[in-house]
Amino acid sequence: MVFLTVEKTRFEMVKKRHSKTYVDAKAEGMVDSQLISLWDAVLKSENYFSSSGCAGRILLLGLPKNASKKEAYFHRKFHRKVLLREIIAGVEENEKGELWLKQEPFILHIGCENISGARELLKVMRRAGIKRGGIMVAEPGKFIIECQGTQSLSLPVKQGKTQIIGKEALSELVKEANKKLEKNYVSLKKFEKELDDIL
Amino acid sequence: MVFLTVEKTRFEMVKKRHSKTYVDAKAEGMVDSQLISLWDAVLKSENYFSSSGCAGRILLLGLPKNASKKEAYFHRKFHRKVLLREIIAGVEENEKGELWLKQEPFILHIGCENISGARELLKVMRRAGIKRGGIMVAEPGKFIIECQGTQSLSLPVKQGKTQIIGKEALSELVKEANKKLEKNYVSLKKFEKELDDIL
Repeated sequence: MVFLTVEKTRFEMVKKRHSKTYVDAKAEGMVDSQLISLWDAVLKSENYFSSSGCAGRILLLGLPKNASKKEAYFHRKFHRKVLLREIIAGVEENEKGELWLKQEPFILHIGCENISGARELLKVMRRAGIKRGGIMVAEPGKFIIECQGTQSLSLPVKQGKTQIIGKEALSELVKEANKKLEKNYVSLKKFEKELDDIL
Repeated sequence: MVFLTVEKTRFEMVKKRHSKTYVDAKAEGMVDSQLISLWDAVLKSENYFSSSGCAGRILLLGLPKNASKKEAYFHRKFHRKVLLREIIAGVEENEKGELWLKQEPFILHIGCENISGARELLKVMRRAGIKRGGIMVAEPGKFIIECQGTQSLSLPVKQGKTQIIGKEALSELVKEANKKLEKNYVSLKKFEKELDDIL
């Protein structure tokens, strides 16, 4: 007979729930393909679970006039590199409020049972050269670590019907966004490799 | 006679060292004015210390050709709102590598002795609506929490001698950067108010 502590029991429950969420999401094709090998390894591990994640993306983010950040909506969302014409079409089709072009880095939430597991993850982050993130939840049996890349690009490209950024500039910015997304994937792979050592 | 634990002794030492660094930096005018009331309150507190911080800034960041992020240098750095002509002058004076216009949010590093102090800080962050950050260092007697705003703008404006972003667009982008820096200060003040409740 095995006796479990309250913390261990809670951790097992939380890991089970999150593992199911992941397996279901994967079956439905809702998981970023660049994250599958990483999350599969976490799933098989004894001491960690995946809570949520995005491998990085390129967006056209809409902001209604005088709106707060909470009212922002995805006008276009790409979990991959983009073509200039996709961005131009997206920009042309929006004529209300503000439209931002954004490249966002990966963001992962990984859970574990206790502070020693969390410390191991912080070390993994450091070894992979990832500076942003940390322990966000520190409850008995449920620690969640956020781990975020740093590659980003973000600027308004259109206000109402007025395009602030012309096509030529947009072409350079899309090139940069793609370049940064690529660097972001390299950084993510580096993290995956380091993480693998402790799973 | 008072007996101190190893953790308490370490914390007292670290707090003393960081407090001295802060007091010296303040005397030399090296502390962002928007942070002084917050850091002064932390200094007087029993359980927390300031490790480092920036109240938010607007930059022209230079990147030598084919260089890594580590080789980036500050071509211009403003810990306040900027005038369009300051940015235009900065852009015109740079003709090598890539030049990025950036508005960065506040970033604070606050220390405490143990996980319960760190949990209090995470709650303060949540109450103030701050989503980015977490416990970065979790050692006995030395916990460091990172707390970061989310307002940001970041794009390349010049490549070598070629200005990607013209003056008209630059004028809109500088307006946005100033607006975002202002929102960033409001968010910082909100955090300061919430933090005050636990000091």
